[in-house]
Amino acid sequence: MTGPARPVAAVRSAVAAAVGDLPPGALVLVACSGGPDSLALAAGAAFVAERSARTGSPWRARAVVVDHGLQGGSAHVADEAAAACRGLGLPADVVAVTVDGTGEAAARTARYAALERSADALGASAVLLGHTLDDQAETVLLGLARGSGARALAGMAPARGRFRRPLLGLRRTDTLGACAALGLTPWHDPTNDGTHADAALRSRVRTEVMPVLERVLGPGVAEALARSADQLRADADLLDVLAQDLLASARAADGLDVDVLTAAAPALRTRALRSAAIAAGSPAGALGHAHVQALDALITRWHGQGPVALPGGIAAHRSCGRLALGPAPG
Amino acid sequence: MTGPARPVAAVRSAVAAAVGDLPPGALVLVACSGGPDSLALAAGAAFVAERSARTGSPWRARAVVVDHGLQGGSAHVADEAAAACRGLGLPADVVAVTVDGTGEAAARTARYAALERSADALGASAVLLGHTLDDQAETVLLGLARGSGARALAGMAPARGRFRRPLLGLRRTDTLGACAALGLTPWHDPTNDGTHADAALRSRVRTEVMPVLERVLGPGVAEALARSADQLRADADLLDVLAQDLLASARAADGLDVDVLTAAAPALRTRALRSAAIAAGSPAGALGHAHVQALDALITRWHGQGPVALPGGIAAHRSCGRLALGPAPG
Repeated sequence: MTGPARPVAAVRSAVAAAVGDLPPGALVLVACSGGPDSLALAAGAAFVAERSARTGSPWRARAVVVDHGLQGGSAHVADEAAAACRGLGLPADVVAVTVDGTGEAAARTARYAALERSADALGASAVLLGHTLDDQAETVLLGLARGSGARALAGMAPARGRFRRPLLGLRRTDTLGACAALGLTPWHDPTNDGTHADAALRSRVRTEVMPVLERVLGPGVAEALARSADQLRADADLLDVLAQDLLASARAADGLDVDVLTAAAPALRTRALRSAAIAAGSPAGALGHAHVQALDALITRWHGQGPVALPGGIAAHRSCGRLALGPAPG
Repeated sequence: MTGPARPVAAVRSAVAAAVGDLPPGALVLVACSGGPDSLALAAGAAFVAERSARTGSPWRARAVVVDHGLQGGSAHVADEAAAACRGLGLPADVVAVTVDGTGEAAARTARYAALERSADALGASAVLLGHTLDDQAETVLLGLARGSGARALAGMAPARGRFRRPLLGLRRTDTLGACAALGLTPWHDPTNDGTHADAALRSRVRTEVMPVLERVLGPGVAEALARSADQLRADADLLDVLAQDLLASARAADGLDVDVLTAAAPALRTRALRSAAIAAGSPAGALGHAHVQALDALITRWHGQGPVALPGGIAAHRSCGRLALGPAPG
């Protein structure tokens, strides 16, 4: 008797490790697009859930397919993905969402909100996502190009809230290999080939940047990028907590205490200032490095300068040892 | 009357800003290889020092050329570089060093030690180095590819001890442009073209990786990498201090207190463990991510495992709530 093909076994082990802490009887949703990563994930989850029925800690799996409605025929693609999941033995639902805005971020926001709603409605303990080590490496490179610090380079977490990414240690070749070994035919998203700006950028990182990096820096570069992301995520998690502590201790009735901020380490001060700006109503996505630097100059390079204008009609001004953030005077 | 060419003015401004805090009469050394970056730097330093003689805060500049003796004809190249510096009005010395070992790191160690000795001997307050924003971006990419955390990605500091890097905000095109505008003929290091493994890798990052990154991610990618480095350097500076605090509070007569380490944030615990291993005698350069992970497993995934072997014949073992590091029993 021979065991399953190596990539099939690797996906199954990864799924088993990712759900090992769930209580008996837990329901696990698998987010499936029908692509190779999430189809391999669905197959792994179906197998491991089935096997768990014969243990003292059984759990149930079902699939959710999100139809973003962004391309013609997306409903058909979603139905096909759901049918593939059912073929694997997973009950499957298609959830149609309305994407508010354009770009990868808008689609992602709509997708995660739909998955949260499904998880709530079904009482699911966890939602599994199919991101692989290759996705992680690409995310790091995309973050690098924005120059936006540890959080952007920290990539995706293996677990955040209910979401879990069991395949973050596996390569895309593993998920393709698992599908092939199981006779599954994954759907290949045509937006990966360039019709959508953000997806096109990610696709070019995948097909143009990564091969050059691997050729010049060695074949382990994707793993190295993922390892960098893990270390930077641990750093960013701690620094975010410490920055919130700083913000709490700087908060006064009439603004933030400049002396407290001045005495703080730059890594915490800049994070606290960014966080204060967002809390005052400046949109996180529009708040850039230059804005935070201008805020920091009000603290560390003070020469009586005027208010700093921030995105979202927010202004920061310093007076009498306090930094106040709020709507700019109309 | 027209001013100097834009890159010439940019180099001069950068030099003036980098030495603005020095006391009157200070001596500043310029490390010059004869290449475009350090030759432009030497020209800028000569001009700004000359101009400072007419102010209330004059300072003096002179050049040091390090001959690494790694290539045939290196003494001649060094003499030519020194002659070029004298042509700019800077007194110049050639210092020959013996590089202990191979690789970019060994040459760098020997070079910095020689510059420190020269600065000591001459009573110099600062040593200027010619690294540009392009060098910084390449350093970040090389660090990313090693997967070695915030410190590796933090690149080079604008100022560290006596060393200052005035050109870290300028592009290599600026130094080339400044040399051209001033009629200077820089030396082009043939090791940049591939005869030396580390220099060859850096050169391939420059000529193969960066152009693809700029084409795919946009022309601002070098600046974004440098900006990421600045932010990660601020993070790493703070995290290093906090990790030393953790180590001090974990230190007991018979080893490190496992309970204290267990309660710490992962970002600090892994740094503290790495630092403890180096303090015990494990060479920093040989101590990899996997070693630190194995040490961390002794703390966070304890199941009675045996000692962890570290480079340099060091072993770590846990017993009775203590982690002890020291020479492995022969």
